[in-house]
Amino acid sequence: MPSYTAPVKDMQFILHDVLNVSQSDVRGYDELDRDFTAAILDEAGKIASEVLAPLNLVGDREGCRLENGMVHTPTGFKAAFDQMRAGGWTGLDCNPDYGGQGMPHIMALAANEMFTGANMAFTMYQGLTHGAYSAIHAHGSEAQKAKWLPKMVSCDWTGTMNLTEPQCGTDLGLMRTKAEPQSDGSYLVSGQKIFISAGDHDLSENVIHLVLAKIPGGPEGIKGVSLFIVPKFLVDDDGQIGARNSLSVGNLEEKMGIHGNATCVMNYDGATGYLLGEEHKGMRAMFTMMNEARLGVGMQGLAVAEAAYQNALIYAKDRLQGRAVTGAENPDGPADPLIVHPDIRRGLMDQKSFVEAGRAFALWGAQMIDSSMRKDDAAAESLVSLLTPVLKGFLTDQGFEMAVLAQQIYGGHGYIEEQGMSQFARDARIAMIYEGANGVQALDLVGRKLASDGGKPAMAFFDLVKGFCKDNADDDEIARDFVEPLKTASKHLQEAAMYFMQNGMKNPNHALAGSYDFMHLFGHVCLGLMWAKMAIAAKAKLAEGADDAAFYETKIATGRYYMARRLPATAMHLVRISSGADTVMALDVANF
Amino acid sequence: MPSYTAPVKDMQFILHDVLNVSQSDVRGYDELDRDFTAAILDEAGKIASEVLAPLNLVGDREGCRLENGMVHTPTGFKAAFDQMRAGGWTGLDCNPDYGGQGMPHIMALAANEMFTGANMAFTMYQGLTHGAYSAIHAHGSEAQKAKWLPKMVSCDWTGTMNLTEPQCGTDLGLMRTKAEPQSDGSYLVSGQKIFISAGDHDLSENVIHLVLAKIPGGPEGIKGVSLFIVPKFLVDDDGQIGARNSLSVGNLEEKMGIHGNATCVMNYDGATGYLLGEEHKGMRAMFTMMNEARLGVGMQGLAVAEAAYQNALIYAKDRLQGRAVTGAENPDGPADPLIVHPDIRRGLMDQKSFVEAGRAFALWGAQMIDSSMRKDDAAAESLVSLLTPVLKGFLTDQGFEMAVLAQQIYGGHGYIEEQGMSQFARDARIAMIYEGANGVQALDLVGRKLASDGGKPAMAFFDLVKGFCKDNADDDEIARDFVEPLKTASKHLQEAAMYFMQNGMKNPNHALAGSYDFMHLFGHVCLGLMWAKMAIAAKAKLAEGADDAAFYETKIATGRYYMARRLPATAMHLVRISSGADTVMALDVANF
Repeated sequence: MPSYTAPVKDMQFILHDVLNVSQSDVRGYDELDRDFTAAILDEAGKIASEVLAPLNLVGDREGCRLENGMVHTPTGFKAAFDQMRAGGWTGLDCNPDYGGQGMPHIMALAANEMFTGANMAFTMYQGLTHGAYSAIHAHGSEAQKAKWLPKMVSCDWTGTMNLTEPQCGTDLGLMRTKAEPQSDGSYLVSGQKIFISAGDHDLSENVIHLVLAKIPGGPEGIKGVSLFIVPKFLVDDDGQIGARNSLSVGNLEEKMGIHGNATCVMNYDGATGYLLGEEHKGMRAMFTMMNEARLGVGMQGLAVAEAAYQNALIYAKDRLQGRAVTGAENPDGPADPLIVHPDIRRGLMDQKSFVEAGRAFALWGAQMIDSSMRKDDAAAESLVSLLTPVLKGFLTDQGFEMAVLAQQIYGGHGYIEEQGMSQFARDARIAMIYEGANGVQALDLVGRKLASDGGKPAMAFFDLVKGFCKDNADDDEIARDFVEPLKTASKHLQEAAMYFMQNGMKNPNHALAGSYDFMHLFGHVCLGLMWAKMAIAAKAKLAEGADDAAFYETKIATGRYYMARRLPATAMHLVRISSGADTVMALDVANF
Repeated sequence: MPSYTAPVKDMQFILHDVLNVSQSDVRGYDELDRDFTAAILDEAGKIASEVLAPLNLVGDREGCRLENGMVHTPTGFKAAFDQMRAGGWTGLDCNPDYGGQGMPHIMALAANEMFTGANMAFTMYQGLTHGAYSAIHAHGSEAQKAKWLPKMVSCDWTGTMNLTEPQCGTDLGLMRTKAEPQSDGSYLVSGQKIFISAGDHDLSENVIHLVLAKIPGGPEGIKGVSLFIVPKFLVDDDGQIGARNSLSVGNLEEKMGIHGNATCVMNYDGATGYLLGEEHKGMRAMFTMMNEARLGVGMQGLAVAEAAYQNALIYAKDRLQGRAVTGAENPDGPADPLIVHPDIRRGLMDQKSFVEAGRAFALWGAQMIDSSMRKDDAAAESLVSLLTPVLKGFLTDQGFEMAVLAQQIYGGHGYIEEQGMSQFARDARIAMIYEGANGVQALDLVGRKLASDGGKPAMAFFDLVKGFCKDNADDDEIARDFVEPLKTASKHLQEAAMYFMQNGMKNPNHALAGSYDFMHLFGHVCLGLMWAKMAIAAKAKLAEGADDAAFYETKIATGRYYMARRLPATAMHLVRISSGADTVMALDVANF
């Protein structure tokens, strides 16, 4: 069975030596000193390793069961969930007014990376609740917040997001679910929603569904969509749970992975719902929490990749097979461990260099979200909005690829379910699809974000990289191994953006045909930037005479690998982008 | 449920217009005129679409069951297997002396691509039998061939290959299974073998296991391994089935995919076995059929990718979501079909351009194998040996990637098992692992094949590409769109080989750290060559005034896509390779 070790040291390095969190003037960051964050991360790590990881394979094997309209979660999930709730982990970054711990989002992201790496399907129950909490927190009336939030912060009640219908996923304008206004101000919601993660289960007393629906007579298409709070059980004004609402689980989907999470078909048959935010402004309400939700999914990509990597590494050190080409390294044994082989090293370094920079990228994203939410930092808000599709799309694509690579290191044993490596790959796969499929992320990036606000956020990013390169040109070693490759990659990114500007005007297909490559090109530049920052931070620690020199030297060496071996992908993406739409759109549909 | 349409027209184009099979002087090729191959392929395609494809999801869902030591295959497998046997499909390219149809291997590969695309797990039962047939045919005594082969050609008896043990996969020198010689010339085989595909089942009367084992007192390690025929039921001299042999199924593995194929733990408890070939020369016996077996696995990669692509294409034409950025293309409908979106096109073109060139590459490989087996063509033998790791490693890596891409086009529906797209990805995954994991293929390519015979096969490949480019430089359009990109890619491949030569001497890690990238670089050059050949053939057909102009124009346009969008990956692989082993091997094992 796979194990999970919390990457506390790595997170501490990023938080304190790279992002310098405790020196930030963002509200709450002053409390994030090394000891405090270490205490939080150690404790979260313990739960991840000891409570959640042992349930991961169980959850995959048992899956959820639908019996008499009730969903049952796998053995052990309820007890573990109670433990998460008791420890306050479900409300780490929630508003203290509603019982939350009030910590910055960056701490919640770090803790959730551990929980997700240990058990992604399990952690989704509270993840979805957090999304629903955020929507109510941002758009609910005071009365709504008082009524729903405290129980959601504690996960006594969990939440869901209901967007997709059989005929519409990305294109929510095709939505059919209706909400009929009632005389008491509530609505009767009717329709079918599919792919509802954590849609029903036995972990909480109530499930608070946030449901997108159309109020009859409203505008056509996406502009006529409103958001509703639709609880599984109605709740009276004293907060007591009352009658069962008119909604039911139509089916539990059989999926490729995340078997421990209940993916439900939800049927609403005139269920009582309460408008959240304004009429017909449902999409706007969804958008306000989108950066956070998509960052959370991006984090899932790297979290599962981390867990898969850890186990691949253990296996590579353990499994004896063949001899090092440069001479036996385990001469007294029957063979050398896999890790002596250069191609196994390549696989491990691909994973390690992705996960560590991906983590820095995600935590940087969380820092920007905190800055925008807690300091009204418009520049941070606009930069993280630009980067959100990259965080989501790139980290999940690469996360899956790395989980597959980790599985590959196990050889045939990786294909056998009892080893758990297949589960990592199967679980990681969903993150490329939900919360906006990665092709939609690429479309959002190129079709919307890149040109938003006259291209200012993109210019700000380029300036940031340029400034960074300028500031760090003096150290020859850093300049050669990190700054120069980053400059080249960033130049590729700018050339690609320029190509879109020059060619997308006359034919937008020239931009959109390169959107996916652009998302990956952008992702590599971001990870290159993260590695450059980490290398500089590590070098500073070494110069200070830090205790654990090997840790910092390893950081620099891992970064060098990324710059030499992974970052050069930017040139390929640029070539593809610059080839335009002609070959992409050449065929008549009938000739495919 | 996914459907499968046999790509007969495409195969006919490759066989006749690209590979010109009927003009070859290889024995049996003169019979392969257009009508004959069309008849074979149409018939195989019908079985694939109508008999095997409908059982694919059934096989995945039901899997195999082990009850009272007997393995039961999924519903419908036995009837379908009987139909395959009755039609003579199991012995298409087998020796007529033993009841085979005697056709060239290229026809068997084409038919098996269809069977595999329709139902990979099912087709493996006869695929494994064919491998065992080939080993006995090549290394058996006349008496052994007469005794075992006729029933194996008809698949009355099926075959297996037993190599892996719990402690050894790639490194077979660690093998523990023993074969004790008996006074009657037979051996008693004892030990445990794992991951035995088609290890037991209810499709045939007998299972003929080929088992690698060590004869006590023989040489240490890999040089002391011999190959044995170990039947499930003993067979008397009249060919009648007798007593049950001392072997049993210890377990059925639960796997990520190919659930319809029984992957067994096989326990041999002093089972009676018969030496096949010479003592201690078991590995040599395995090697003689390795090109064919590995080509067969490479074919699996593209076969499943083809099936996944077909269904992604249907979905992309069908599913209405969003509007074309250049203006509605289905203005009367609620939305446009997915296929109008440039990023969906990119995904489809990636798949289409891979599958069609991958098929040409695999069929070219089969043509070379036929040439080597039926004409003693040493040049073909040495070239296909060089290309075998590329055929296996590249086609299966890309095949899986394309199956994942096809799944992605389905969005959330791709993650739901009932749609069947997840199965394609899960099934395709194994082809990267078995028959030598792809890292081992890369090692074989760079560590063995590239330098074999003083590098002559590699030089022959470079000369072949060079000659081809020279011969086709006159047509401006072909030169610009196909020949020039191919030249550039081939130059990258030669530079990479040169890098290995110059740096691998002083440190072999410099070669092996780039082996995986080299395999992919090589694969792209091969597919680039295939596209150039196909484009030229298509252009010739157009010049002839062929009926179906759209088919040939589509070929050229699809090829242009590959050259513009996929082939440029060669530059990235070269950069990675040229970065050498330093960053790859930089970390001490303890510092990972």
